[in-house]
Amino acid sequence: MKLASIKTPTSRDGVLVVVSQDLSRYAVVSDIAPTLQYALEHWSRCEPLLQATSAALNADTNSGEAFSAQHAAAPLPRAYQWCDGSAYLSHAELVRKARGAEMPAMLYHEPLLYQGGSDDLSGPHDPIYIAADDWGLDLEAEIAVITDDVPMGVSVEQAHAHIKLVTLVNDVSLRLIMKPELTKGFGFYQSKPSTAFAPVAVTPDELADLWRNSALDASVVSHVNGQKLGAPNAATDLNFNFAQIIAHATKTRNLKAGTIIGSGTVSNRNPEQVGSSCLQEIRMLETIATGEAITPFMTYGDVVRIEALDANGDSIFGAIEQTVEAYAPA
Amino acid sequence: MKLASIKTPTSRDGVLVVVSQDLSRYAVVSDIAPTLQYALEHWSRCEPLLQATSAALNADTNSGEAFSAQHAAAPLPRAYQWCDGSAYLSHAELVRKARGAEMPAMLYHEPLLYQGGSDDLSGPHDPIYIAADDWGLDLEAEIAVITDDVPMGVSVEQAHAHIKLVTLVNDVSLRLIMKPELTKGFGFYQSKPSTAFAPVAVTPDELADLWRNSALDASVVSHVNGQKLGAPNAATDLNFNFAQIIAHATKTRNLKAGTIIGSGTVSNRNPEQVGSSCLQEIRMLETIATGEAITPFMTYGDVVRIEALDANGDSIFGAIEQTVEAYAPA
Repeated sequence: MKLASIKTPTSRDGVLVVVSQDLSRYAVVSDIAPTLQYALEHWSRCEPLLQATSAALNADTNSGEAFSAQHAAAPLPRAYQWCDGSAYLSHAELVRKARGAEMPAMLYHEPLLYQGGSDDLSGPHDPIYIAADDWGLDLEAEIAVITDDVPMGVSVEQAHAHIKLVTLVNDVSLRLIMKPELTKGFGFYQSKPSTAFAPVAVTPDELADLWRNSALDASVVSHVNGQKLGAPNAATDLNFNFAQIIAHATKTRNLKAGTIIGSGTVSNRNPEQVGSSCLQEIRMLETIATGEAITPFMTYGDVVRIEALDANGDSIFGAIEQTVEAYAPA
Repeated sequence: MKLASIKTPTSRDGVLVVVSQDLSRYAVVSDIAPTLQYALEHWSRCEPLLQATSAALNADTNSGEAFSAQHAAAPLPRAYQWCDGSAYLSHAELVRKARGAEMPAMLYHEPLLYQGGSDDLSGPHDPIYIAADDWGLDLEAEIAVITDDVPMGVSVEQAHAHIKLVTLVNDVSLRLIMKPELTKGFGFYQSKPSTAFAPVAVTPDELADLWRNSALDASVVSHVNGQKLGAPNAATDLNFNFAQIIAHATKTRNLKAGTIIGSGTVSNRNPEQVGSSCLQEIRMLETIATGEAITPFMTYGDVVRIEALDANGDSIFGAIEQTVEAYAPA
């Protein structure tokens, strides 16, 4: 099934809805769970009821209300944890080369994680607000999963079973703030503004053959201003799958229901053929090829679009489509 | 007023209560706000009602129920954001020296922040669970504030007014996991297990003269197994106050209601006189003085106690008192 949270003025968490497979219609499920967070906390009770609603919605194409991604918040408009990995090492190698940073040897042996801000997650059509246009604004197209309660110290096999939903992310990054920020040694803060999410999150059973070995076998297509940046496959050249990332994350802590775990920027080893999921990779490839980065970072008015497609070219999660807007403090 | 969240099997967020000034009694305020998160989201409406309850509770010493810190969760048992600063540069200098790391020049000009895990915060008497005792388990005694909604780009003056509560933190750290983790370049994750909080959070008006210039003028006393580590003053040698940290944090993002902002380990410039708030500082001072670190990190069965005292020696937030326990995965 596919789940979304529709924006409402009366709840910071939106209203949980079940969305049809083709993303055209939805059914409110407030009698089962008012919010996605609630559903994740009571998954064993809610999941079969939500699945039944999904089956009925898909069976009767006249049922439900018209679904518009414009009205969707992030599936979890705010979360208690957003932990992002960096599981495609081809991306890690290229962006480090661009920053003039070394590739630590440990990255080949265990997943790299950072703790992201989760109190203010953006919906698929929310603007990207920035207060200055010289911060090196970049997209990062990623896959993410959402878990139920995961106890400390789970195995990779146990971790796989805690993945309840899969979705698509724009891990918005400010490249020119990032480089000096990382020299301080404590990771990202200012360089990672509000992360944006696709309209829906999808259960592994609904993904069927596309979900294998804790990874999503789908092309992730990114555009800026209608120009295609790339369409790498999210299951290809993935150095650590989601179960491995989760197991690594639980070494010293529990993960509570509603934890979002990201893959890092989707990146394949043949970017010349499949393109990239962020501007920084493209700029680095340009620098390697020509001696200078040609593609600019994003600025006010630019539009970024990210979508994951199945083998038929159908959108799995709906598109993230964000316009960059100037932010003026009150 | 002083607020706490009492543990209950029926809510992950506990039950909000108002606690008397002397921490001896409490009144349930579910008719005003079921949880602290709810109160922070509706602060302008809830705060006067909670203050009235507090005034009545303090006026009639026979009213209320007996308060026990043993039953308290963290004031926010889970939060949407836990952002920890490192505002005492004497601490930053000593722990970097211990790690053999450089002190980046930027740290003297702007606050250092890291994004902490906030989905599973510990109450004041919760055990510290670790699965191995060779990870270099350390305490870090810190002050923290809790905000309402803070928009992107606030000034230092505006930030000050968004501080609704002040509390005390044990930012539990795993020093021997930290050093290799930080070489990966993305900050802390495994090296920061569940952070623990004092029994109550206190409004700035209740702190009166102790709350000045967005800082807490109180001694923070730390013990391990009954042995005093130190009692530095939290307003002394503070390089960045909470308003400055918050303003810095909002450069590229909003902070939503219930955001917790930490000071970093409380540390004064004269540790020989006032002692320290973590073992790593003590070990570094020992190394400087004698050539080797003598004080061990914590292990199973050890008890850490952290408390902030006013000028009369009275406990402001109640004590954090945690025992280290071995964790065995299921």
